[in-house]
Parts: sequence; structure tokens; C-alpha cells
Amino acid sequence: MNKTANQMLVIFGASGDLTARKLVPAIFNLYKGKHLPENFIVLGASRSNMSDEEFRQKVVHESSYLKDRVKAGHEDFIKAFSDKLFYEDLGQEYDTDYSSISKRIKALNEKYNTEDNFIFYFSTPPNLYEVIAKNLSDQGLNDETKGWKRLIVEKPFGYSLDTAKELNKGLQKYFNESQIYRIDHYLGKETVQNLLVTRFSNSIFEPLWNRNYIHHVEITNAESVGVEKRGGYYDKSGALRDMFQNHLLQIISFIVMEPPIDASAEEIRNEKVKALKSLRIMKNKKTLEKNTIRGQYLASEIDGKHVKGYREEDDVHPQSMTETYAAIKFYVDNWRWKDVPFYVRTAKRMPTKVTEVVIHFESPHHQIFKNSDMNNKDNKLIIRIQPDEGIMIKFGVKVPGQGFKVERANLDFYYSSLSEINVMEAYERLLLDAMQGDATLYARADEVEAAWSFVDPILNYWEKGTDVRTYGYSAGVWGPKNGDDLIEGSMGWRNPGEHMADDPGFCVIS
Amino acid sequence: MNKTANQMLVIFGASGDLTARKLVPAIFNLYKGKHLPENFIVLGASRSNMSDEEFRQKVVHESSYLKDRVKAGHEDFIKAFSDKLFYEDLGQEYDTDYSSISKRIKALNEKYNTEDNFIFYFSTPPNLYEVIAKNLSDQGLNDETKGWKRLIVEKPFGYSLDTAKELNKGLQKYFNESQIYRIDHYLGKETVQNLLVTRFSNSIFEPLWNRNYIHHVEITNAESVGVEKRGGYYDKSGALRDMFQNHLLQIISFIVMEPPIDASAEEIRNEKVKALKSLRIMKNKKTLEKNTIRGQYLASEIDGKHVKGYREEDDVHPQSMTETYAAIKFYVDNWRWKDVPFYVRTAKRMPTKVTEVVIHFESPHHQIFKNSDMNNKDNKLIIRIQPDEGIMIKFGVKVPGQGFKVERANLDFYYSSLSEINVMEAYERLLLDAMQGDATLYARADEVEAAWSFVDPILNYWEKGTDVRTYGYSAGVWGPKNGDDLIEGSMGWRNPGEHMADDPGFCVIS
Repeated sequence: MNKTANQMLVIFGASGDLTARKLVPAIFNLYKGKHLPENFIVLGASRSNMSDEEFRQKVVHESSYLKDRVKAGHEDFIKAFSDKLFYEDLGQEYDTDYSSISKRIKALNEKYNTEDNFIFYFSTPPNLYEVIAKNLSDQGLNDETKGWKRLIVEKPFGYSLDTAKELNKGLQKYFNESQIYRIDHYLGKETVQNLLVTRFSNSIFEPLWNRNYIHHVEITNAESVGVEKRGGYYDKSGALRDMFQNHLLQIISFIVMEPPIDASAEEIRNEKVKALKSLRIMKNKKTLEKNTIRGQYLASEIDGKHVKGYREEDDVHPQSMTETYAAIKFYVDNWRWKDVPFYVRTAKRMPTKVTEVVIHFESPHHQIFKNSDMNNKDNKLIIRIQPDEGIMIKFGVKVPGQGFKVERANLDFYYSSLSEINVMEAYERLLLDAMQGDATLYARADEVEAAWSFVDPILNYWEKGTDVRTYGYSAGVWGPKNGDDLIEGSMGWRNPGEHMADDPGFCVIS
Repeated sequence: MNKTANQMLVIFGASGDLTARKLVPAIFNLYKGKHLPENFIVLGASRSNMSDEEFRQKVVHESSYLKDRVKAGHEDFIKAFSDKLFYEDLGQEYDTDYSSISKRIKALNEKYNTEDNFIFYFSTPPNLYEVIAKNLSDQGLNDETKGWKRLIVEKPFGYSLDTAKELNKGLQKYFNESQIYRIDHYLGKETVQNLLVTRFSNSIFEPLWNRNYIHHVEITNAESVGVEKRGGYYDKSGALRDMFQNHLLQIISFIVMEPPIDASAEEIRNEKVKALKSLRIMKNKKTLEKNTIRGQYLASEIDGKHVKGYREEDDVHPQSMTETYAAIKFYVDNWRWKDVPFYVRTAKRMPTKVTEVVIHFESPHHQIFKNSDMNNKDNKLIIRIQPDEGIMIKFGVKVPGQGFKVERANLDFYYSSLSEINVMEAYERLLLDAMQGDATLYARADEVEAAWSFVDPILNYWEKGTDVRTYGYSAGVWGPKNGDDLIEGSMGWRNPGEHMADDPGFCVIS
């Protein structure tokens, strides 16, 4: 176990949703699991006027997780924990003189002996990132002469390549890149990290992990819910920005990357950047037209209940062309992956909630068992990110009886079989990493820019192109029919069930 | 499903144990499963005097399987089946004039319209094989001008290379090789046949199936019982002849062989012969001393009950040096397997009954996750032949939590998950194959001789060598300690539990 130095966590935007819903429960769990250093406090900051006590009450009140613990009789324990929480009012705006908060930080640092180690967590809209960094810098709070200083910034990190570059430039004016931690909670998921271990701690997968043996790669990220209360944000963002640009490209980089020299943050991130840079950027209209499909969910009935279409959702423009479904086919221009197609889709209002990677291996070169029923039944490696996390290999076995008939069977492993081990929530894990200065699972500036470089032309084409269609699909089905046309031949997407082993085919609920 | 021609099965040695215990129940199950042709009868022959009816009663009486069915109220069904059974007394000896049985065969053939298709099943000691073949030939019963004629001969097929060659020569004087079916019931096992399908109907195993990725191969065949009532036979035979020479070398040939052109009997058997010929024959004393170990079980106490030592068993010589444990290390001299050691052991009075193949893959060439607990924990592919038939891959996954700790996990498939399919017993399957003229799972003459060529020098060394030790081991442990020394380094044998996932380590019951 790594040592965690005494430190203070300063959260900007502390009155927001994320602090109570994710951050404070994550810190609470670290406290409960004895992962916090001896001296550790949290200072919340935002434009609301609250006392320390009011802040404590607010986060416990707004966190159903903490409220449940209070109800379960753990009130004393919660009280002991919330004594570590403090609050500072920034006043009217974030762009103000930070001498007051700076004084408070120094006083708390003195009193609670947090050794001048500060994490500044920016849980604010991205347009405030530079402003906060500048004002912290004005107070000398970027100075690492005594103790370290780190920034954690929340996604979305940019809205396009240009805005991402601007954000990076803005932060890097005041902090070194090594001080900046760009969070992507997807990387906090065990099964995402397990992609690296599966590939590089075993000798049987890596020899097959290239164009000689892999026919194509398929990644599905499906949500069963719609946009819910996030219509306003989502309508400006869309599926490509909301999921693909960050989370899915992170997963893709783990699948695509070359083996790093070692498991250090810099080496892993070097390889990820290289992987992202090797994705073939789609430059002309014809390529974009052929390899990208967007869709939007329509009103439907699921389990006898009317479900709104996307355009009827709150805060969504009634003629919105924003995609709630995105399917992209692309190639990777490097020695390992040349000519292997990648098919990636992400969508809302699908039949089920699932994220998985499917490696489709080539068919056996020579069919020895001619009468077998293995036509079009290639070997598959399925890596399930959520739910029901695990790994499955679909392969052929002999059907009992005469001759050599072949049937598909599953070799499977479920992560839950390791249940004796306590799995940390993504935010918990990521916060602890930042507290210990491990940036492996945080995105580096060049990584974020490489991701945007790939996504930008698609966004431009969709937003500014003429006659680019947005296909409708009924809420509760596996997207528009055109999504299937993206994959050549008769293979189609694997439309998985809630459990890995299910394979219900194209499923229409309506 | 293949068509099965009308035919007659003639069993020599029909009054023996095998007929009632294995053959008739197998035929009964084929009858029950509607696999028999419309016209089908069995003619038993031996030196006992019985009527047809007495023979019918005897086999039903001696088969606990059929008796149970009668008790369960299926008497009419059994009766309908046993009407297909007939008997002919050969008189004093097998080497006699076969004109009487020949007449009977022809009369039954006429009456039951079995179209001159005859299988002669030799369920007799091997020294009678040539004699029976000769006498059948004298009656023209080897002639295929009208209808086909096939021989099935039971193991053991020979006692050494010379005796096997003699048996082959003796049979081939009167019958063509294509008419001769040498049975090895191990090849009737689904999981043995599945070795071929696993290797050649999947694209993910074969690329790894060679010296570049495989570190060593381990095969264990363990029985928990002792010699039981077979002391007389066993004391002259020993583990090497009883199990290794036939069953285990069959399994080894499936592991070692190159992909056949197709799944036909001739192509598969051509590759098996090539595989057996590529086993490096141990020529000098030093090699034999280093790579072979024999042992014999000693009296012990298992679950509080005294268990006899081998030398105390009935019909075993009190100073017997016969091995009940044999462990052999060898190499395969071909392009695919050069320098990959094979470790094979077979024994009686082990802690459990199990037969399995373990493919140990090379460790990853480069250790990226340094702190991981994967030292000496290579990837393994375990193919379980019995019991609990299945396939398991032991591989590394990430331990939940910070950093990249690696733990071993299992991807597994159990054959029983395909339980909707009725699995045929080995004898049932093999008989039906012979009835249909499919010799894939029968051993060809050159195959048997290639197997003996490998085993002969070991047998000679053990039987005639000076100072060759037979190591004692307590009944109920995993053989003598020296057996572990055979495997270099600290790896040792995998001593499996009853289920694939168990791995109890060296287990001593006493």
C-alpha cells in the first residue's frame, strides 16, 4: 500500500450536485476504509453563503448514501467524519480576489497540520478553470517549494479540439502539466483497468492481439435510460461528446495500445497517446458518410408505459438534431492493427444497460470439420465492463455423439467470483490516486487533444454537413436499422443481454 | 446421421465378463436409442455349453444395468431386445473346425436378412486372435464379395513391440488392415475426441500450440482404486502397459499431432502415427534413469480403514517389482515441439480419480506489473478428461484496488453444461462406429507399433536393467516423492482435486 501524505482537499463548486452525490461519499468511504492520512480535511468553496456546519448538514442531507448510514445508526461515525469538512464562501463570483480563501487555507493548514499539500478540485463549469487557476496562482497556491499542489478538473474537458487546447493552455499558464489531473471516472472502473492486466500479465492473449488473428473489434456502450434531467446539457453535447470522446476512446486506447515499458503513469500514458494518434482521422465527406451514423430516440412504449421521445424531453430543442445514438467505424493506422475494422457505438434508451468490448477472432483458416455448425461462428473474447463484469471466450466444442459436430460453448470468468475483495468505487479510487500523486488513470493534455483530433471532424460533419441524417429509433430498441449496415457482411452487432451469456439477438421492446 | 447397414455381430468369448458388463448393455442402449438397423442380431460364441435362452438369461443376469431395467418394469422391452441374442457353442477349443458356427451364421443371416455383413468381435485373450481369424478365413468368412466383414479386437494389443507385430501379422494373414478395428475405449470418450475439436475448430488455440508459447505439457491419469480383482493380469502387465502404452499415448498423439487435412479416419490416423513416431525414443541407460520413475503402492490407512499394499493383493507376487505408478518425461522431435518437455504419469491408489492434460504456457516475456503475485504462475490450459469433464484456462486478472496487482482467475467450461445432449458411453459409440465402418477412433497397425516402439525400451530397462528402483508410496498419496523430482525447477505436478478448480497441493491421506 502506498503512503498517503497529510493534505487538504479544496473543492471549488462545492455547493453543486457532484460534491454531495459523488465526492463526499467517496471521501467518506476512504475514511471508513482507513485510507485517509492522519491529517486530512476538506474545504468546500463556492458562491453560496454557508457556515461549516450548514455545509456539513447539506452534504449529508443531499447524499442518500450518507443519509442511509445515519438512519442505520451510524450517526456518531458520520459526525466524526463531517468534522473534517469546512466551507468558505467565495462571494459573488469565482473571478475575485482569493486572499480571503487563501488565508483560510493557510489557517486550516496550520491548525490541522496538512503540511502544505493541497488538492484543488474544480467541480465547476470548464469556463471557470482558467480563472480559478489564475487566482490560486496569484496567491502563490501553485507553489510547490513547500508541500505539493495538485489540480483535479472534471469532465467535460473541452467541447472541441480548439476549446480543449484553450483549456490546457489556460491551466498550464499557472500550473505545470504534472500538477494537473484530468478525471475520467471510466478509468476508475476495475474492469477498464483490467484490460491492461488481461493483455499484459498473461502470455496467451498478447500473441493473438493483432491483425493476424483478430478480424474486427466491437465496442458497445448502451444505456437504458434517456437524458433524464440533463436535457439542457445533453442537447448541446450529444452522445459523441458525452461518451465517445472521453470514456470510449479511453477504452479503445487500452485495446489498441502497444505494451508499455512498465506500469508507471508516464509509460502507460505515452502508449495511450500513441494509440489515440494512430486512429485514422476521417477527412472527407464520403468517408464520414460511410463510417458514421447518428440516431435519436423516438417516443415509444416500454413495458406498457409511454416513454418520451428525445425531442419531448425537458430543455431539449423540439427540432434538435443532437444524436442520442452514435455508431462509428474506423481503422487504426499502425503495424499491429492495419486493416482491422473497429466498430463502436454508444446510445441512450437501448434495451439494456451494458458496456462491453468484443474481440472477434478470424475464423480457422482451414475447416477440418466440414459438417460442423460453426459457420460464421468465430471465436470471440468478450470483455464486459458493466454490469456483470467479467471475461468470456466463445469457442467451439464437440457435440457429444458420433462424428465431429461442433457447437459453441463459453469459457467464462465473472469478476464477482473474487468477491472477498472490496471493490472501490471509481471516484474513491481516483481520488486516492490523486492524493498519492499517481496520475496513471488521469488524462494527460496531449491525450485529451489526440482524442479530440479524432472526434472533431465527425462533429463538424454532423453539425455543419449538408444532408447528414439523424435516424430515428424507438426508445427501447438497439438503435436505428442503419446501425447494422455499418458492419459489413451478415455479422451485425452483438446485442447482449444483461448477462454475458445472453445473446437475444435484435431485441425490440415496444 | 450415418446409415447403418443390416448386419450381424458375432462375439467370440461371449461367456466372458466383458460381454455382459459392457458389450450387451452398449448394444441394448443402441437398441433403445434406435441406432440399430432394422435387421440386427448378435451371435455369442465361446466354449461354454448354453442354449440361446440360457445365454439371454445369463447376460441379463450378469449385467447390473439390464437387471435394474427389469426391476424397473421394463421386462417386455428387455425381452424384445434379448430376442436378438443367439448363442453357439464352439466346443473344447477356439482352434477347431468352424464349419458348424459358419453354418449357424449363414442360417441366421438368411433368416434375419442381415445381408452378409458381419462383425467378429474378439473378446478373448490375444493369443487366440490369429487362431480365430484363421478359422474364420477357412470358412470364407473374410470374403467381402457379398457384404462386408470386420474384426474388432480388444486390448491389450500385444505385450511388447514384437508381440504386437506378431499379432498384426497373424491377423493380416487372413484379413485386410481395413477390416481390422483395434478398440481403445479411451478414444470413445467425448472429452478425448474434443481435444481434436478444441484444437482444430477454433482459431485461438492453434496459434499458441507450439514451442514458442508452450513451456511444458503435463498429463495425469490417476485412479483411486488399487488392482482389485485383476492382480493376476496386472502383475504381468503394470501401469506402463495397462494405461500408458495405449490410452495415454492416444491422448498424447491428439495433443502432439499436426492438423490433419480433413476429419476422415485415414487422415486423422496418418497424423497420429506421425505424432507417435516423433516421440524421442530413450535409447541409453542414463536417459532412461533420468526420465522414468516407477513406484508401487504400500499398505496404508485411508479414512481409518486399512488398505492393502500392492504386494499383499490377491494373485500378486509377494516380491513383485511391477509398477503401479509410472512417471515419464520425454521430448517430441519435430518442428512444433522441439525442446518442450512432456511429463506424463499414471498410477493406482492416488488420492482421487482424475485424468487431465495441462498445457503450461510460457510466462509473459516481459513483466510489466512488477509487484504482482504472478511469480511462477504461468497461464495454464487444463483439459479435464474425467471426471467433471471440461476445459479451464488459468489466467491473471487485476486484483480490485489501487495499482496493478495481479491474481489468478479461472475461465471455465464444463461439458455438463451441454447436458441436454445424451452422451453415448464409450463402447456404445465405438460399436456404432464399427457398425458404420468408421475407423477414426480405432487404432491402425502402424499406430499400435509406433506406440510400442516408444514404450519398449522403457519396459526393457525396468524389467532387465540392473539397480532400477521401484519406489514405494503410501496408498492414497500422489505417488513417490521422486516423482516430483522429474519436473525441473519448483513447479512440480498439478495435483488436482475432484473438480477442475480445486488445487489442494500435495495431499497425503493416511
